[in-house]
Amino acid sequence: MLSSFRQHIERYQKISDEQFDAIKPYFEVHSLKKKENIQEAGQAQLYNYFILEGCLRMYTLHEKGQEITTEFALESWWLCDQKAYLGKSETDCYIQAVENSIIIRISRDKEQLLIKEQPFIQIYILEMYQKAFAAAQFRNKLFKLYSKEEIFIQFNSNFPEFVQRVPQYLIASYLGLTPEYLSEIRKKMIS
Amino acid sequence: MLSSFRQHIERYQKISDEQFDAIKPYFEVHSLKKKENIQEAGQAQLYNYFILEGCLRMYTLHEKGQEITTEFALESWWLCDQKAYLGKSETDCYIQAVENSIIIRISRDKEQLLIKEQPFIQIYILEMYQKAFAAAQFRNKLFKLYSKEEIFIQFNSNFPEFVQRVPQYLIASYLGLTPEYLSEIRKKMIS
Repeated sequence: MLSSFRQHIERYQKISDEQFDAIKPYFEVHSLKKKENIQEAGQAQLYNYFILEGCLRMYTLHEKGQEITTEFALESWWLCDQKAYLGKSETDCYIQAVENSIIIRISRDKEQLLIKEQPFIQIYILEMYQKAFAAAQFRNKLFKLYSKEEIFIQFNSNFPEFVQRVPQYLIASYLGLTPEYLSEIRKKMIS
Repeated sequence: MLSSFRQHIERYQKISDEQFDAIKPYFEVHSLKKKENIQEAGQAQLYNYFILEGCLRMYTLHEKGQEITTEFALESWWLCDQKAYLGKSETDCYIQAVENSIIIRISRDKEQLLIKEQPFIQIYILEMYQKAFAAAQFRNKLFKLYSKEEIFIQFNSNFPEFVQRVPQYLIASYLGLTPEYLSEIRKKMIS
């Protein structure tokens, strides 16, 4: 089951069987049912999640109680409220399974131990953070440059499988649109 | 002049004089006049910039030709179009001095060499990327949760010196507001 994790590491650096066995104990495997939360707002001492199978989302509550999805993660993506994770402070974000999912996770303490005790893995970890930063910075730019409607149209043409796979009301909660309005945009796109 | 760079590294890890001397050759120092661009859209083979003195901003052009500021960086901050930097692809971002500034910069090739040849510095580099990712992810959440007006009010109370220091039309171009509208918000806040 961990083979997809090893494959992901090996996209960035070759590792031996012994090295992979050495890093396994730092991670925990969990199965999640659809709509189950693995992180609740108010928790501290967070984990960084890697998706083996399925799809997760991170969301927070607007002061009016409305759910705002801040990120999605599919297979081979990492997901984490990085600010609270680094500072070991309380998060205001929930992490929920969009589908039945299998994940591995690592705590901040274990990540720091891993880096210290198995320094060969630093190359992979650094690459992950560089890519995560690039993706977050790019999303910021996108939301500054384009309207929510334009972002959905781009999203739809760049990630058609994702748009098919994830319920429309969750995509709406990511874009900050009502499900009804998103549905109207889709109708217009088809016609 | 590089002492503030060394101090910044030493917030995260202790380094010796010999180690600091060993990493210096990977970086270049540049002085910039106010409003001078050190990166132009269309450039590839980018640099990552660390501000020793002054203030820089990154901006891109909306299709209507309007400048959209995507990030600011003050003393001891790093600034870079990370996606183009990592992929050595063409950027659509300009980097400009908001004030007369002194910066150091490192190319992606040199960064990769630095990590390989001076592995002790990986701790600092990893911490920088972890923090940059956390900051970008936090900004994404902020822009999803709050209106531009609310973000300016928070910004103003969290970073009053920054708001004093940076011209108002640039803050407006960061928030996606017209300078006139930002001016109205400020008047309301005072009254």
